[in-house]
Amino acid sequence: MQVWGGVDFGGTTIKLGLVTRQGRVIARTTLATRQHADPDAFARGVASALHRLSRAHRARLLGVGVGAPGLIDTTRGCIHRLTNVPGGWRGVRLGALLERRVRCRCVLDNDVNAVALGEWSFGAGRGTRHSVYVTLGTGVGGGIVLNGRLVRGAIGSAGEVGHMAMALNGPRCACGRLGCLEAFVSTAAILRRARRAMRQGARVLRSLAERAGGLTPEVVARAAVAGDQAARGIWREVGDALGRGLANVVNLLNPERIVIGGGVGKAWRLFAPQMRASLRAHAFEAPAKAVSVVRSQLGDRAGIIGAAVLAWEQRRHGGMP
Amino acid sequence: MQVWGGVDFGGTTIKLGLVTRQGRVIARTTLATRQHADPDAFARGVASALHRLSRAHRARLLGVGVGAPGLIDTTRGCIHRLTNVPGGWRGVRLGALLERRVRCRCVLDNDVNAVALGEWSFGAGRGTRHSVYVTLGTGVGGGIVLNGRLVRGAIGSAGEVGHMAMALNGPRCACGRLGCLEAFVSTAAILRRARRAMRQGARVLRSLAERAGGLTPEVVARAAVAGDQAARGIWREVGDALGRGLANVVNLLNPERIVIGGGVGKAWRLFAPQMRASLRAHAFEAPAKAVSVVRSQLGDRAGIIGAAVLAWEQRRHGGMP
Repeated sequence: MQVWGGVDFGGTTIKLGLVTRQGRVIARTTLATRQHADPDAFARGVASALHRLSRAHRARLLGVGVGAPGLIDTTRGCIHRLTNVPGGWRGVRLGALLERRVRCRCVLDNDVNAVALGEWSFGAGRGTRHSVYVTLGTGVGGGIVLNGRLVRGAIGSAGEVGHMAMALNGPRCACGRLGCLEAFVSTAAILRRARRAMRQGARVLRSLAERAGGLTPEVVARAAVAGDQAARGIWREVGDALGRGLANVVNLLNPERIVIGGGVGKAWRLFAPQMRASLRAHAFEAPAKAVSVVRSQLGDRAGIIGAAVLAWEQRRHGGMP
Repeated sequence: MQVWGGVDFGGTTIKLGLVTRQGRVIARTTLATRQHADPDAFARGVASALHRLSRAHRARLLGVGVGAPGLIDTTRGCIHRLTNVPGGWRGVRLGALLERRVRCRCVLDNDVNAVALGEWSFGAGRGTRHSVYVTLGTGVGGGIVLNGRLVRGAIGSAGEVGHMAMALNGPRCACGRLGCLEAFVSTAAILRRARRAMRQGARVLRSLAERAGGLTPEVVARAAVAGDQAARGIWREVGDALGRGLANVVNLLNPERIVIGGGVGKAWRLFAPQMRASLRAHAFEAPAKAVSVVRSQLGDRAGIIGAAVLAWEQRRHGGMP
């Protein structure tokens, strides 16, 4: 069987697996990032795991894709900088380093771009020519497929949906700027609103947070499901801001589909109605009607599948970004 | 000689010309829109003018492109709606109508997309893979070329740079929404600020407006050049808002180049310094360094050249959007 390796390089774990050309993950495993936090250890560990899986499944590894959390120079397969990963990675040509060990073509790109490509190829974006993926969580990231190709841009940094400014003097974003979409809908923004609600007496929220041993977006979601009005209001605010942000994307790019993923994206039912109403209110009518906004479908396999798609997608386009 | 016809369908005049594959306009003429304001009269007038020019220059017409001001269904060569053009155009398959008269392939697209393609092929965007064109005037429009292809989107409405919201309760835009980029930098926005400045005593501005018989962006530009502090401030505000809007485009799309055109764009020297500073302040550092923001180069030939490029660009991609 012919397979491609997909490597999802995260801050805590490295998820990797073997993926068929049909997008099926036939085997997978994880490595601890802490034990592979320098380029040589990473390449050694990943190559050894991929070889082990390939042997066990009698599969022939044709290429490997790596999705890494940061700014990637895809023309040279080189890391510009990583976020949330310790160690010295700046300037490392991780593709070439890994190629020497796995003995097949290795392609490196940003992890959110990989997931966007995975959802477009085998998930919620399938069948479209123009699809935008948005991940909601600690940060708000994105990946854009237009005319059937990933949009990387001049230096590979395209897709920062979360850092479009929506307000002139809005809340301070983790990136340092004011009024970014991320500053309205990130985990930190949700928890900030939830803490304010608790101070103002949101009892269900408070008791659920105490029982869970702390406040998380999941707790805020459970409180909303349990009927806490303040928690419900928080998700409506998230939906409203997200809809405004997506309206900008819709006016600018006129995508057929927008796919929402990430940890906070799991609260879909709580923010989706307001998100849709807000999108309709703030985007032009014709492109707003032409877009469907849906949940991601690939779950925790998205990173592995998307990274594998990188391997054959790059080859199809001659290795250039 | 082999040439392509470029037709720039405007609210007042229809500009048309013969363009070589190297982007040179070898002949051009204009028609009054008022006298060609229904589809049949348009097709008759344009075909007859193109034939006349071709005969006079012994040129063989290989294809015709039409840039029209409105929402165009490029898959069917059909007008969805036109702005600022009288008459019944909705649903008209102008490409097919014209084809019957000129007897070669006719391609229809939005006029700003055509100019974007023209500037990318032969003007200020030449040599890039990722270029965004922005036109400043009565409205603020845009056209996006990514991975060497025009981005049309699901229904052909992509590129509305002017209708990204930048403020939650900003000024009312001509489109009806609040806080769009257009509402900060359009002709109307400039004149609104200029009238306020005149009420508050901007004397140079007032006397120049009186001498010119009315207030226009050009008068505000001349006042700024003449040293009127209020007029200078207006252009700085235009630059500041434009830079913020472009920062969103840079964070999202990471283009190599942004090309600024349109009537208001002629005041380039008055707003460019503040625009650049504001872009640097509001975009991520790496993509902000990777982009150059420049003036358009094709002047009043842009519409004709861009429309001609449509004719061969569509063919290259098999006629699909």
